[in-house]
Amino acid sequence: MTTALLTDHYELTMVQAAMDAGTADRHSLFDLFTRRLPEGRRYGVLAGLGRALRGIEAFRFDEAEVEYLAGAGIIKDNLATWLANYRFSGDIWGYPEGEVFFPGSPVLSVEGSFAECCVLETLLLSIFNHDCAIASAASRMTSMAEGRPCSEMGSRRTHEWAAVGAARAAYVAGFAATSNLEAGRSWGIPTMGTAAHSFTLLHDSEEDAFRAQIAAFGTGTTLLVDTYDEEAAIRKGVELTDGKLGAIRLDSGDLASAARRARDLLDDLGATDTRIVVTSDLDEWQIAALRGTPVDGYGVGTSLVTGSGHPTVGFVYKLVARAESADRSAPMTAVGKKSKGKNTLGGRKFAMRRLDDNGRAEAEVIGLGTAPATDGNDRYLLVDIVKDGEVVDHSTLEDARQRHLDSLAELPPSALRISKGDPAIETIILDSGGLETTNPYQAAPNPANI
Amino acid sequence: MTTALLTDHYELTMVQAAMDAGTADRHSLFDLFTRRLPEGRRYGVLAGLGRALRGIEAFRFDEAEVEYLAGAGIIKDNLATWLANYRFSGDIWGYPEGEVFFPGSPVLSVEGSFAECCVLETLLLSIFNHDCAIASAASRMTSMAEGRPCSEMGSRRTHEWAAVGAARAAYVAGFAATSNLEAGRSWGIPTMGTAAHSFTLLHDSEEDAFRAQIAAFGTGTTLLVDTYDEEAAIRKGVELTDGKLGAIRLDSGDLASAARRARDLLDDLGATDTRIVVTSDLDEWQIAALRGTPVDGYGVGTSLVTGSGHPTVGFVYKLVARAESADRSAPMTAVGKKSKGKNTLGGRKFAMRRLDDNGRAEAEVIGLGTAPATDGNDRYLLVDIVKDGEVVDHSTLEDARQRHLDSLAELPPSALRISKGDPAIETIILDSGGLETTNPYQAAPNPANI
Repeated sequence: MTTALLTDHYELTMVQAAMDAGTADRHSLFDLFTRRLPEGRRYGVLAGLGRALRGIEAFRFDEAEVEYLAGAGIIKDNLATWLANYRFSGDIWGYPEGEVFFPGSPVLSVEGSFAECCVLETLLLSIFNHDCAIASAASRMTSMAEGRPCSEMGSRRTHEWAAVGAARAAYVAGFAATSNLEAGRSWGIPTMGTAAHSFTLLHDSEEDAFRAQIAAFGTGTTLLVDTYDEEAAIRKGVELTDGKLGAIRLDSGDLASAARRARDLLDDLGATDTRIVVTSDLDEWQIAALRGTPVDGYGVGTSLVTGSGHPTVGFVYKLVARAESADRSAPMTAVGKKSKGKNTLGGRKFAMRRLDDNGRAEAEVIGLGTAPATDGNDRYLLVDIVKDGEVVDHSTLEDARQRHLDSLAELPPSALRISKGDPAIETIILDSGGLETTNPYQAAPNPANI
Repeated sequence: MTTALLTDHYELTMVQAAMDAGTADRHSLFDLFTRRLPEGRRYGVLAGLGRALRGIEAFRFDEAEVEYLAGAGIIKDNLATWLANYRFSGDIWGYPEGEVFFPGSPVLSVEGSFAECCVLETLLLSIFNHDCAIASAASRMTSMAEGRPCSEMGSRRTHEWAAVGAARAAYVAGFAATSNLEAGRSWGIPTMGTAAHSFTLLHDSEEDAFRAQIAAFGTGTTLLVDTYDEEAAIRKGVELTDGKLGAIRLDSGDLASAARRARDLLDDLGATDTRIVVTSDLDEWQIAALRGTPVDGYGVGTSLVTGSGHPTVGFVYKLVARAESADRSAPMTAVGKKSKGKNTLGGRKFAMRRLDDNGRAEAEVIGLGTAPATDGNDRYLLVDIVKDGEVVDHSTLEDARQRHLDSLAELPPSALRISKGDPAIETIILDSGGLETTNPYQAAPNPANI
């Protein structure tokens, strides 16, 4: 399915006008970045790159798309011909998936003709604004879970296709599994799930339902025990499995006390290996609050797929440099708008995470025009992703999960606090001579953050 | 593209276990409803039905889907065969698109075998939870705009396909146009857009950019005037169009004072017909605050596509009645779980909006088992949507827009206040004898609401 029309009307209007004016093929450089993190967040998590690459691959204007655009009067013949032959032929580089980012981090740069880069704006922003919002929330949840597995089960609370992206983003940030089957098929993410209350209600008794489930999936299954009476259901589940019940799920009430009661009862009944998983409007604070209870796993829905209060990141995609011709070796001029509160830092950027002698992150260093100097401890952040239109980055989802763990481990411990905070490290901008210059994206520390 | 795997794993696990136990074909009735409105909201808006119908049509397990599911060990042969032949053959009825809803409103009911209704749960919830969240926010925005056109331009701030659903939902709730081209193609929604700051920055001067845009689209185009200096840009735009400039767009700074300054300048320059449109993180409060200024139109992005603080509605899909066989005429038993805070009202429901002599809505009346009696002024809310698997509701998007306007006009004026409030009308539950009974979804009025 083509992604070409998942695009704002004005991308094509701009290309049409530039084409008519002879400026559409000017060699150009766009940056994707955020001016600030969502309020109170200490870091962001980059996710969506793998989806973006598939999205660019599928960005094709076939006959049906060109016909619609021409019929609606949105494009003229010259643009119709150009779109029909569209294939991104430029370069893309940026942060690898799983990496953390901060205000001003140049997480993705796209270089090519103005027209070929411009038309990708909406698709790239949609993917990264969504997926990074989910991954950033997910990372806080997996941190709070301290190793106990988190499962993503929010498909029903978000758009049906957004659900697939959300499952993938959560996986990048350490979730163990998803309920979403398309995420399993498309991205190889482990899927999980057993039964809802409707399954119990379908049967003439809870016992009938439990028997049916155990007959189909064995004693290792997870029984949902809160349809009628938790204690009776737990007793029945243990009885029907001879104490070998895999897990119970609690989905209502006060989960902390319910988990403690359930653990005591299970242990009394000899079902000491039966795990307790909880669901029901969990978020990172609930997960943290349940650490002191005998909960073995978390199922997270609404809060995860809506970014736990921050459903979008605020990434923008800005022209930061352009030549006066299509020549890729022509000198480029740094450009940036000067609008109030929306200044953009023009020019080509390099990114490095400054690390101290112990490998602890100290700053996000952005070099304008040249790479920041390193004393040897630091880590350069940009990787080549697409060269001359061909994908050269073949990182896997497992790579992204590992990258995320490694990046988190480098951050100062304060980064992982659940409370509202300023960005965990500062962003420093260096000019082409290596001297520190004004950072238009660095907000003053927020005194409300603790 | 099939929607069949946009489904939670446990839907298939349940069907598998029920199939093995001989209960999968029990005649069943599911309701889709919300127990409460998002905090402070006075009404919700039903949107997504047209998408749901296309989604059900595309809910097909082809070879690739069955192969994945079987290969992953999620289904056994008997279920694989059943899925390969899946086609919904039951009945669906509910609220028409554009209608408003309240806690407990039975906005969609699905009747058929347990298995065929169960597998649609995730898809239906995804669509309605998303689209209704957007439409409910959009309705507050168009109300606050008091007739000045609102355009949806939030595609870049949400998942790329969610953007299409969001554009459609906003249109149901009175938005005039969208920036999203796929929404234009798929749903016939008017699209709009002219240029971003990158277009100005691409050119050697703002004047070059304006000339290129006017050459391509005529003097009636909308010029973005805040890349460098608003006053200079407005003067240049008026000069280049001989005072016939269609519109200017302001995208930064204090929009109220900027709009006033721009109007004065445009009028001084004789461009009295040039319209002023504003964008930049608008929400319903900003739109309301700008009513006293010379703004002619609003472009709304982030806040709209994220539901203005409430990105999901909280719809659930619950088994409320089932027979003990597949016989459609067999007696059905009302069922509902008794979990703490998550009680479900079992049984078949009828819905009516009680209107007073002046046609003003007074209550949402839900009859259990039988339709509530009317004194003649009232309005029954349920319409047939699918009969025996065939779509029988052929309402258009324009019908939905009109339905929305008509439903809003019926509500008490307090419903349209922007401040936090309780549901605009109460929901009353009548038992099969027509007597009022306990409403498990009616929260006590929130004293924090004003």
